[in-house]
Amino acid sequence: MNLSRRTFVGVVLAAGARGAVGRADTDDRIEWHTIKPHDLRGRGWAETSPEFGRLPGWAQGRVTSGVWNNGRCAAGQYLDFTTDSPELRVTWALGSGELGMWHMTEAGKSGLDLYARDQMGRLRWYAVAGPGGQQTRDRVLARPPTGLNHFRLYMPLYNELTELSIGTRSNARWEVARHDDAKRRPIVFYGSSIMQGCSASRPGMAFAAILGRRLGVETINLGFSGSAKMEPVLADLLGEIEASAYAIDAMPNMNPNQVRERAVPFVERLRAKRGETPILLVEGRAFTNAWAEPGRSRYAAERRAALQDAYDALVKSGIGGLHYLTSDRLLGDDSEAAIDGSHPTDLGMMRYADAYEPVLRKMLG
Amino acid sequence: MNLSRRTFVGVVLAAGARGAVGRADTDDRIEWHTIKPHDLRGRGWAETSPEFGRLPGWAQGRVTSGVWNNGRCAAGQYLDFTTDSPELRVTWALGSGELGMWHMTEAGKSGLDLYARDQMGRLRWYAVAGPGGQQTRDRVLARPPTGLNHFRLYMPLYNELTELSIGTRSNARWEVARHDDAKRRPIVFYGSSIMQGCSASRPGMAFAAILGRRLGVETINLGFSGSAKMEPVLADLLGEIEASAYAIDAMPNMNPNQVRERAVPFVERLRAKRGETPILLVEGRAFTNAWAEPGRSRYAAERRAALQDAYDALVKSGIGGLHYLTSDRLLGDDSEAAIDGSHPTDLGMMRYADAYEPVLRKMLG
Repeated sequence: MNLSRRTFVGVVLAAGARGAVGRADTDDRIEWHTIKPHDLRGRGWAETSPEFGRLPGWAQGRVTSGVWNNGRCAAGQYLDFTTDSPELRVTWALGSGELGMWHMTEAGKSGLDLYARDQMGRLRWYAVAGPGGQQTRDRVLARPPTGLNHFRLYMPLYNELTELSIGTRSNARWEVARHDDAKRRPIVFYGSSIMQGCSASRPGMAFAAILGRRLGVETINLGFSGSAKMEPVLADLLGEIEASAYAIDAMPNMNPNQVRERAVPFVERLRAKRGETPILLVEGRAFTNAWAEPGRSRYAAERRAALQDAYDALVKSGIGGLHYLTSDRLLGDDSEAAIDGSHPTDLGMMRYADAYEPVLRKMLG
Repeated sequence: MNLSRRTFVGVVLAAGARGAVGRADTDDRIEWHTIKPHDLRGRGWAETSPEFGRLPGWAQGRVTSGVWNNGRCAAGQYLDFTTDSPELRVTWALGSGELGMWHMTEAGKSGLDLYARDQMGRLRWYAVAGPGGQQTRDRVLARPPTGLNHFRLYMPLYNELTELSIGTRSNARWEVARHDDAKRRPIVFYGSSIMQGCSASRPGMAFAAILGRRLGVETINLGFSGSAKMEPVLADLLGEIEASAYAIDAMPNMNPNQVRERAVPFVERLRAKRGETPILLVEGRAFTNAWAEPGRSRYAAERRAALQDAYDALVKSGIGGLHYLTSDRLLGDDSEAAIDGSHPTDLGMMRYADAYEPVLRKMLG
């Protein structure tokens, strides 16, 4: 690498050490802030099981084991905080020592991703921390310059988080910001591995996270890897969250028959709990090698038709506030936006966000 | 994952097994084609050390150890082949068992990436194979439908390749295409880790590979991770290759003084060997968190100014065929296109290709 992150950290550490000469010792002491689940945003429930997971304990045994196990991952949760500390350190622990996947970086599966607000108030990428193992202790995350005070730290996408602490200089201001965008209720995203964030290079690049930054709205990521299949209990779960909008993007895990059987009752059940909240139905993306696989294209077309039929039937039955997003723009048309035909790279995640953004803006009004 | 690659392979294998019922046994036998270095394209020298590396043996001890060690990686090499086999298998072995990096997938560092020509003759992504270990044996890579006959397979970006075999059905046509785009001499790309392909998600997404597909020209990737510093011997090495264009993109590894000292003699030395071949000088990209790090921005600005001065001095001295690419579009302006501030994700690689493409088209005439 030309200038690896570790090298960079080393350089900046050295500069920090020089800058510290002459300061009182107390200035350099690190104070550790233990992060509790209720400090995080992007959560549908105050109490979850496990504590940094995404589902309430009562759901165990009522959702499928696939949904439950994927619900243990920390995907989509983030910490908004304010500090004037000239140094940020992190300690975190993970449920699994399998840090990466063949099609996903360790940074994305198990790392932490830091954004900061620029002078215009816009959240921009600032630093990343790949895991050093199942436990990563006292890692320097960043040395923010004066004036950089507002941060958002995204949690690992495909691992359980069991412990998180942020280290600041002991004389620095420290505040967890729990209600930054709370003028609006969150957007709830329900979907597949793509929704959960596979294969974003780092947690902030899952498309729901990109959309949260763009729209300035809290986002709740209920992506359940291969297990999003519109079971009725999931409609009940989604309906428990007071949302400003729901995005239902479960098609990649469902076969055409399941869509035909489940889509209408799923939306009716959610609508019954949330009388007016806009609901978006999203077609599954085409595989990026569908151009060469006519059989897969036919299957996908059948599935899309089933969702279109469900949408039409729901509208005809008088259910309002429904929106629809077609598959054509989700991954673009150049076959390059996924790592394995299915899972978007950061290129694909950006295209997903581009496709979602206008319809979500319309839904939020 | 909603539909993992392994699941997909399983599904297709099952379909293939059903389809094979009633066929003669001979149809299903696999013939293995051992790939030799001279079968590959994207090589500057017929003989390299190691045999799937990127530098000639005489360079050892004359280039820095960093250049030499990175030159062992297979980056940028690819196999163009033609077959009507309804099944493609791969066996490959790697120099290192470190399959991924915290900021790079195993597929990108150590995997194989397959493109195929569509009916318009355009190379489009088709399949990928992540490594199963230092050795991956008899992996089904794809089950191409009838009519899909022309393929390009990219080699691992950040690992040494020590063995490669392609398996086809024993009655299938098989031909290595060594001169597909040979109407034009190759473009030689010299640069840093970014050039070598860090952190592309898969080998075909290194930006030089993207450009080779877009321009229909053979590309030779001489990216040497952190070790591209415009040493005179590198100008000699580049000058040995009969190229249609040279792209010099070593800035991320150099400090401003090195640029001031080396850029002019480097180009003069290359120009002396290659009297008319167009040469492109590329400014280093800004770090994607440069917005928050004024110190790094000043350093980068000083380095850019040094390259601009070198370009001006070279033009003034009468050296023709020089081109220049500024840094501003390489990673875009939204801070999202790198994993760690420096290394482009696929989003960044696509932006690099977008920035390079028009100037390379102009250079090729």
